[in-house]
Amino acid sequence: MSTPMNNLGIVKRNIVRADKAAVEKLSRFGVATIHEAMGRVGLMKPYMRPIYNEAAICGTAVTVLLQPGDNWMMHVVAEQLQPGDVVVAACTTDNEDGFFGDLLATSFQARGAKGLIIDGGVRDVKDLTAMDFPVFSRAINAKGTIKATLGSVNIPVVCAGASVNPGDVIIADIDGVVVVPAAVAQQVADAAEARENLETEKRAKLAGGVLGLDMYNMRGPLEKAGLKYID
Amino acid sequence: MSTPMNNLGIVKRNIVRADKAAVEKLSRFGVATIHEAMGRVGLMKPYMRPIYNEAAICGTAVTVLLQPGDNWMMHVVAEQLQPGDVVVAACTTDNEDGFFGDLLATSFQARGAKGLIIDGGVRDVKDLTAMDFPVFSRAINAKGTIKATLGSVNIPVVCAGASVNPGDVIIADIDGVVVVPAAVAQQVADAAEARENLETEKRAKLAGGVLGLDMYNMRGPLEKAGLKYID
Amino acid sequence: MSTPMNNLGIVKRNIVRADKAAVEKLSRFGVATIHEAMGRVGLMKPYMRPIYNEAAICGTAVTVLLQPGDNWMMHVVAEQLQPGDVVVAACTTDNEDGFFGDLLATSFQARGAKGLIIDGGVRDVKDLTAMDFPVFSRAINAKGTIKATLGSVNIPVVCAGASVNPGDVIIADIDGVVVVPAAVAQQVADAAEARENLETEKRAKLAGGVLGLDMYNMRGPLEKAGLKYID
Amino acid sequence: MSTPMNNLGIVKRNIVRADKAAVEKLSRFGVATIHEAMGRVGLMKPYMRPIYNEAAICGTAVTVLLQPGDNWMMHVVAEQLQPGDVVVAACTTDNEDGFFGDLLATSFQARGAKGLIIDGGVRDVKDLTAMDFPVFSRAINAKGTIKATLGSVNIPVVCAGASVNPGDVIIADIDGVVVVPAAVAQQVADAAEARENLETEKRAKLAGGVLGLDMYNMRGPLEKAGLKYID
Amino acid sequence: MSTPMNNLGIVKRNIVRADKAAVEKLSRFGVATIHEAMGRVGLMKPYMRPIYNEAAICGTAVTVLLQPGDNWMMHVVAEQLQPGDVVVAACTTDNEDGFFGDLLATSFQARGAKGLIIDGGVRDVKDLTAMDFPVFSRAINAKGTIKATLGSVNIPVVCAGASVNPGDVIIADIDGVVVVPAAVAQQVADAAEARENLETEKRAKLAGGVLGLDMYNMRGPLEKAGLKYID
Amino acid sequence: MSTPMNNLGIVKRNIVRADKAAVEKLSRFGVATIHEAMGRVGLMKPYMRPIYNEAAICGTAVTVLLQPGDNWMMHVVAEQLQPGDVVVAACTTDNEDGFFGDLLATSFQARGAKGLIIDGGVRDVKDLTAMDFPVFSRAINAKGTIKATLGSVNIPVVCAGASVNPGDVIIADIDGVVVVPAAVAQQVADAAEARENLETEKRAKLAGGVLGLDMYNMRGPLEKAGLKYID
Repeated sequence: MSTPMNNLGIVKRNIVRADKAAVEKLSRFGVATIHEAMGRVGLMKPYMRPIYNEAAICGTAVTVLLQPGDNWMMHVVAEQLQPGDVVVAACTTDNEDGFFGDLLATSFQARGAKGLIIDGGVRDVKDLTAMDFPVFSRAINAKGTIKATLGSVNIPVVCAGASVNPGDVIIADIDGVVVVPAAVAQQVADAAEARENLETEKRAKLAGGVLGLDMYNMRGPLEKAGLKYID
Repeated sequence: MSTPMNNLGIVKRNIVRADKAAVEKLSRFGVATIHEAMGRVGLMKPYMRPIYNEAAICGTAVTVLLQPGDNWMMHVVAEQLQPGDVVVAACTTDNEDGFFGDLLATSFQARGAKGLIIDGGVRDVKDLTAMDFPVFSRAINAKGTIKATLGSVNIPVVCAGASVNPGDVIIADIDGVVVVPAAVAQQVADAAEARENLETEKRAKLAGGVLGLDMYNMRGPLEKAGLKYID
Repeated sequence: MSTPMNNLGIVKRNIVRADKAAVEKLSRFGVATIHEAMGRVGLMKPYMRPIYNEAAICGTAVTVLLQPGDNWMMHVVAEQLQPGDVVVAACTTDNEDGFFGDLLATSFQARGAKGLIIDGGVRDVKDLTAMDFPVFSRAINAKGTIKATLGSVNIPVVCAGASVNPGDVIIADIDGVVVVPAAVAQQVADAAEARENLETEKRAKLAGGVLGLDMYNMRGPLEKAGLKYID
Repeated sequence: MSTPMNNLGIVKRNIVRADKAAVEKLSRFGVATIHEAMGRVGLMKPYMRPIYNEAAICGTAVTVLLQPGDNWMMHVVAEQLQPGDVVVAACTTDNEDGFFGDLLATSFQARGAKGLIIDGGVRDVKDLTAMDFPVFSRAINAKGTIKATLGSVNIPVVCAGASVNPGDVIIADIDGVVVVPAAVAQQVADAAEARENLETEKRAKLAGGVLGLDMYNMRGPLEKAGLKYID
Repeated sequence: MSTPMNNLGIVKRNIVRADKAAVEKLSRFGVATIHEAMGRVGLMKPYMRPIYNEAAICGTAVTVLLQPGDNWMMHVVAEQLQPGDVVVAACTTDNEDGFFGDLLATSFQARGAKGLIIDGGVRDVKDLTAMDFPVFSRAINAKGTIKATLGSVNIPVVCAGASVNPGDVIIADIDGVVVVPAAVAQQVADAAEARENLETEKRAKLAGGVLGLDMYNMRGPLEKAGLKYID
Repeated sequence: MSTPMNNLGIVKRNIVRADKAAVEKLSRFGVATIHEAMGRVGLMKPYMRPIYNEAAICGTAVTVLLQPGDNWMMHVVAEQLQPGDVVVAACTTDNEDGFFGDLLATSFQARGAKGLIIDGGVRDVKDLTAMDFPVFSRAINAKGTIKATLGSVNIPVVCAGASVNPGDVIIADIDGVVVVPAAVAQQVADAAEARENLETEKRAKLAGGVLGLDMYNMRGPLEKAGLKYID
């Protein structure tokens, strides 16, 4: 079914992963900070939720495109994993079946994977939590899958509304999931650090009772926009 | 309004519950395993979620059909409960009102019920959690209900997309809710056990680094299906 | 754009807050009890969920109307907060952006706010949890916002389907969020207390095995409605 | 994968269809009337919509259980169709792929089918409309499907929340889809007729300005319930 | 259950309707124009859709608060209707049952009602369309309702996210539903007219090839905001 | 806010549009056929619906990334349109505001645009229909927008789950919206033609009573998969 006109039935083995130092630096910041540092882009949709509250991931994307109700390619992608990778699983249609459980997690973890981002369902959540294998998914669902149709590995995918290329940096925490293109990973990490430093200072001021209205000099612009105070 | 042509306004007192030994055996396995052992059928929809993460239920179904915004029949069903039962509550229309709270839970628990599966809302979640009374529902909602319209008890119902007959085995955990028809409870329990045994062995292999591709002999079929590896 | 024909671009400084004693008394009861005491009205929609399970709020409403993707007015509302207030944030359109995070929470907390109810998204949930700053929202979302368009502060708003006036009492717990108009706060508190007292007694009876059918004298009305018991 | 413990991989050839005269009589009434005549049960969920406004179906159910993203069984069910049948297609999981288009419709129509009810997606809607082949579905979706996994034909299914047995009568119009069990088809048809006759009379009265309050003698019960008129 | 602390069980007979001339003038403009003229407020949520494309309403609101699955108050509200009124029906909880059909429409029409806005379901859509009785609803649903619980008539309600007071002007067309408070009806009508006049002129310019960029003098502000053109 | 690390605040003027002959050839086929010809990829999500049933589009994509509640960039994109283009509008967050109405449509049409695909809301639907300006959107909504924040024009976007590059071919009809990458437009058009030719022949056979089971030689594979016929 794979034709030269599309990307189906393909496994790309050699991908360029984002720079390790940049990935490490990005791991120090939260998703909200990184997303702001990029100019407020790169987020997956907020229906992507962690299977347990403390779940957090930072690593390099290995992508997989699944077919509905079919997890055959999850076994194919396992072989392409290197320590520090995160599997990003998209599907050709909206489907909440349980594509992933504790057996695949065992395999992914054995190869050094940092976690899974899946625009679909997962199961064996109790075991995954005990294994401390973080997953961000659109659903928890016991529904099993078959192994009958080809998808692809390490092609560009759209996962939960975000464009992901193999090798991009994926950061996920309780606030959501953000994708940092490999080419700008270092730059974004630096910008996130700068932003974080500024926030520490601001937090102290606000805790001391200074208002954002004053700290950000908003009173003038608000008045100019026409804000009226009445009693 | 109840006519011979339908099942409304009926309470069936004598139902045949699934064999106790089979129920006990099923209680050892997770929902995902049991659902696979049945051939990937019998699940409720994944919008059914536990009110606390550790909630788990295994018991025999006593069914109740509710009307929207009305929990009168919840009091009727209480009388039909025997130790080991699980109440399965369906509604004649989609409705997320809080049909159930700590008072009814106290009554159900006093009669030996194992928990509640409800395609509607529940409330008093803090109390239910403290009582360790497991509930799987489509919503948490403080909205109260009235007591004005008849439904039925122990008729066949459709709950969250699954067909449930009185006496069927209901197993629920964080992965979802599955219905095992009473007639095949022992057979499914045996199949689940067989499956579980196989999984232990597979888990060890995968943890040791063996790939699913090899363990399941997938390389040949994948090649035959046209999978191509590129660099 | 603010014209005399609407309420946009307005900050009302002096509002009449519900009586402190009534607020304190209401803080002793759960949302379900209070909502019943009011005659089963006043609830926000059940999609409003706490960012952590133990989150609970009771305080007086300071309202803010936001524009989609814009949190400018959150800084304006901060200045209007007094100890014991709860910010109730509505939006002119459905929008799940992350209007609120740990910096604003620091500012609100510094001014004595009890928490936030927002028909939108929030972020920095890990920090908010550590700060023990309770938030009830429709989404968790890292998506940042801009500061460009006027809304209003302390006008009547519709938040998650409920009408809220500045000064009303807001009570929120794991069962949901309820709005008690300031004018009836004491009356509702008294009715809630009466209801709670009744429930303690009922709970004991039900725990002892008495059925709701008997405790509430339902057998006659059920028979009259046509309920039939079959074997 | 089909085992004795479930119904997968089965095609039942001989089914008992509802009485032809009863089906014919039911075809004269709307879905709302029939559903009321049954005591307000038997409806599918309101997300099931016609692909064109004038679509209307009355016939006997031939059921099919599909797997997500797979329409293999649609070809199997075609062979089981007799003139006057309606295909009722359920799926083992929520899936909106386009399981059905103009080629299958041509085949179904050639065998005398009256239409399709599918808890999934359909495509080629322009052609289906031109062919006057009525379909009620949960989605319109160009997404194609594969032919790889067995489901079943003529087993009991749950379709859009309603339980359907082969041979039941299915009536569908712009108000929705209702299922009448074969065993009560004549009885329901008679009740629908009686109801329809009553409605004609009521309509005339209401058109003449008589109020439902008076026609149904509601004033007393409303007063007793506590209704208060104020000025 | 109706207590002095809430509005349940009340029918207010004398309400102040918006000025007739203002209502007539508002009827000349579309919902989008009127909503802009008010400063982009007052809209119901976009899930409110007409039952047929040409449906359009302009009239004065008579409000009704329903209970889930119960349309008793629809008969009560009928008596309060005067020619030119629009019934605005809210519900105490999200519920898509079919509260309204051709019999009630006949009664409403006999009393001169202009149409119905309902945050719930309707049925008999084929008949309503033939009668040319416009309805805007959240669902089409054959599901019938009972007559058992009191709501209220002519109290302030929240309908589909908008606050509506009895006597307000309701304008509905294919773009949605907008609520104009009675007190500003004339002012909004005048502002809508001014806006409409401006649009005619703009439309001609745009049709002639003038760009909005130039007509609205946006090039400077865009450049200032940092927009960059690249090749 | 536009930084070298992202694409915000950019308008790319020179884009490579798909070959005109290929676009013309693609315009002869339906979305379902084209999507199958590509190997079942490239579809937008099925929530994208035409504003009127006969709406159909085939043209080359000019992309625009919007901010929530802000349609400033719609005016910027107008200038980049050439005859035969289709505007594809994505948004940085889920937002159903009415970003587009008859004034912008007049401007787009004056520049030769074939239509609009927008992952957001539109308004003035009556006028757009009268103008025969086809739009596929996620919502119809009168809600107006502001002009305050930069997005971009002619950058790669994700629209309704599909990746779109400027110059790609967009085909839309009642079955949905498909994206054909410019580089494979001719190849896909040829494959669609081949598929269409095959379908004509199949349709004739099926109309004559031949079963898909026989025409596609499915009986053997079904038996091998374990399908059992019972009576």
